Order: sequence, then C-alpha cells, then structure tokens
Amino acid sequence: MLEAMKTGSRRLAGSFTRTLFISTSRRTELKDVTAEIQATVNESGCSEGVCHLYVPHTTAGVLINEGDDPAVAHDIEATLDRLIPHRGDYAHAEGNSDSHIKTSLIGSSETVWIENGQLALGRWQSIFLADFDGPRRRELRVKIVPDLPASSC
Amino acid sequence: MLEAMKTGSRRLAGSFTRTLFISTSRRTELKDVTAEIQATVNESGCSEGVCHLYVPHTTAGVLINEGDDPAVAHDIEATLDRLIPHRGDYAHAEGNSDSHIKTSLIGSSETVWIENGQLALGRWQSIFLADFDGPRRRELRVKIVPDLPASSC
Amino acid sequence: MLEAMKTGSRRLAGSFTRTLFISTSRRTELKDVTAEIQATVNESGCSEGVCHLYVPHTTAGVLINEGDDPAVAHDIEATLDRLIPHRGDYAHAEGNSDSHIKTSLIGSSETVWIENGQLALGRWQSIFLADFDGPRRRELRVKIVPDLPASSC
Repeated sequence: MLEAMKTGSRRLAGSFTRTLFISTSRRTELKDVTAEIQATVNESGCSEGVCHLYVPHTTAGVLINEGDDPAVAHDIEATLDRLIPHRGDYAHAEGNSDSHIKTSLIGSSETVWIENGQLALGRWQSIFLADFDGPRRRELRVKIVPDLPASSC
Repeated sequence: MLEAMKTGSRRLAGSFTRTLFISTSRRTELKDVTAEIQATVNESGCSEGVCHLYVPHTTAGVLINEGDDPAVAHDIEATLDRLIPHRGDYAHAEGNSDSHIKTSLIGSSETVWIENGQLALGRWQSIFLADFDGPRRRELRVKIVPDLPASSC
Repeated sequence: MLEAMKTGSRRLAGSFTRTLFISTSRRTELKDVTAEIQATVNESGCSEGVCHLYVPHTTAGVLINEGDDPAVAHDIEATLDRLIPHRGDYAHAEGNSDSHIKTSLIGSSETVWIENGQLALGRWQSIFLADFDGPRRRELRVKIVPDLPASSC
C-alpha cells in the first residue's frame, strides 16, 4: 500500500514501485500483461495518479494495442519480422540485431493514468510486453505516482 | 482551474484532466492539435508542470513533429502507408491491421512539459493526433500535473 | 540542487530542469548521452523520482538501447536508413523528410526513473540522442520530478 504523509489535515501518498516478472514462449511475442499491471495498481491502493511502465531490457519493450482479437498481436509481430528480418546484413555478432532494432521502434516506456483505481485504458486497449528475443523471463517495472489531492480548502 | 491544497503557507495544486474530441477526415491523417492542447493548459491554470497526452484508441496515436510545412506530415503519412500497406497478408479480419501496426510504432502516449504556462515545445514542433483508420471522431486525453512549488523556506 | 518546501516536519522538493547540449558528427547518429544525464541527476540531488527526457527538435529524438557493443547502434542506424532512405519520392522540399519520419518513429520523449540517486536503467541499457539530420548541436531537455517522501506518520 502507498505510504502516506500527513500535511495539515490531508495525507500525501508517496510513490509505489514494483517489478513484474513475465515469461514469454516465442522469439517474437506480444504478451498481454494488463491483468498483472491492474493487480499492481490494486495492491498500491492508488485511486488517482500516473502509472509509468518501463522495460529494462534492450530486446524487449512495451506497447499498447488491441487485446481482444489475438490476430492483431499476430499481425504486429509478423509485420515487424517482415520489415526487420531476423537474419540480415548486421554488424552485431550475437544474431539478435533485429531484436534491438524492433525494441528501439516500439520503445521501453509507456505512461498510463489511473482513475477510480483502474488503469484508464481505452475500450479495446491492452498493455503488452513485447519480447523480440524470447523465450525469456522478462522484467516489467511499474511505478505509480498518486495525484496530489485536489481540495477546495 | 486546478484546485489547490493548502499546506503551511503554500498551496499544492492537484492534477487536471481533460478529454479532447478530434475529428479527422482521411484514413491516414496527422492532425495538428497543438492549439487545442495549449487551450487546455490555459484552462488548467498550470504555470509549471508536466503534460501527459494519451490516445485511448488502438488505431490512432500521438506524435510530435514539424507543423510548419504540411508536406512533412504528408511524407510521414505516405511513408507509413508504403512500409505497412492497407492491404496485405494479415490475419485480423477487420481490414485495418495496418492501422493497428502503425499505431504500435507511433505510440499512444507522449509527455511534454509546461513552462510559464506554455507547452515547452521546440521551435518547429507541433503535436499531432495520428489517425490511421479515419475518418473518425477521436479522443485525446490530457493530464496536467503541476510541479510542486520550489521554495527556499 | 532541488529546492525544498517544508510541510509539517518534512520537506517536499520541487522539480529540476536542465537543457543539455549534444554535438553529433554524422547525419544519422545514435550518440550515447547516459553519462551526461546521470551527471544531471547528480546535480539535482534527487534520490527517488522520475526523470523525463525531451528532444525539442523535429529531426532528432531519444531512444534507449544497448550501449555496450557499438555495433548495435550501427545496426539501428543502418536499418532505419534502409527502411526510410534519405532520397525518395518526398513532398517536403528541404531534403530531410527521412529525418522527420525517423524521428516520428523513434519519438521525442522517454521517461526513466531514479532510484538511490541513479538512473534506474537495465544492465545493458544506455540512453541515446538519435540525430537523423546531423551533424548538429542538439538540445536534450531533462526534467526531474522527485517523489513525495513516503512516511509512516
């Protein structure tokens, strides 16, 4: 739970940080982690605030897109593999240059906000850990910064 | 206006959230929404802080680039359509897989900051709602988090 | 150093903003700026908080990826140049449409957080100013927002 700081008659809550561990099962895989992140929001006790997401890897990132029809994630994966093939004329000797490039395009962070204790996602949005060099056990870091309480004092 | 919280002799301002509604007129369209967002900053009364932008859709995102010469937005639109064609070998049956993929690449959020009541954009920067499955009426959410006041007390 | 605001028996620190100037030497260049940003965190005196990064240009952005083997940055640069060639059928007359498009894909902002006074990057992560129309002298803006202190009061 968020720890609180008392000021006058109100409490200011500090931030809340949690690292989630996510296992993937394919080389290129968008894994829906919305439920895990919402569980973290619940655990934090935050009602209104900002939820920062951060992936501390260089061959996996985070993105937000449709989670309802799994064909969408499939098409995103396949198109990235078509544009940036696994095998190619790359300088990096570890055989995963494509994974680094895909991660650079998708990005390592996202910022969502929290309203009434819920991730304020759109109707069709899910949050995905995007692994481009799986299968692996990945970290997704969550930092929740509660809003200052608005008041009419 | 931002509501304030009194603490000692100073006031802490809470956050300010607003949803903007943006209409697009083409399938792939970068629409300059800088003026609408600045108007929201004005309405908030925030002088110094962070402005989070969020698009709650899965076929539209938000990006920052040149707004002075409309040819730049045209070239961004055309290049995305070339790299990720509307028609292709996609699994998702709704005919807009390309829109989901473009949105994943452009991203759903941006974070800008506010200085002296103005969006602290670069000289040539504008903020665009990037619709990839228009024409539609889209939402762009704005959340303004004022800085805590610095003081020498 | 962050200026503090006293409230009850605790101090709230305001935010800290700094503009870094980064010189690049090639047209497409990922330049590692991690050390400069860490130095800014040190200067701020922030121990726990959020570090927002922002590039106020339309032909340069910011990304996070591997800094250990320079071949990775090379492969990211070369692949972006392959997908979005310098010369092409572009409408913008200044000859740098590719630079604007690459910047749109990579993005203008990143959000990292600060733990124990250090940028909380992953083991292999570095932060790069990504210039797509160099060589130039570029700005990278850093805004540090300290967490509210958690307490058990």
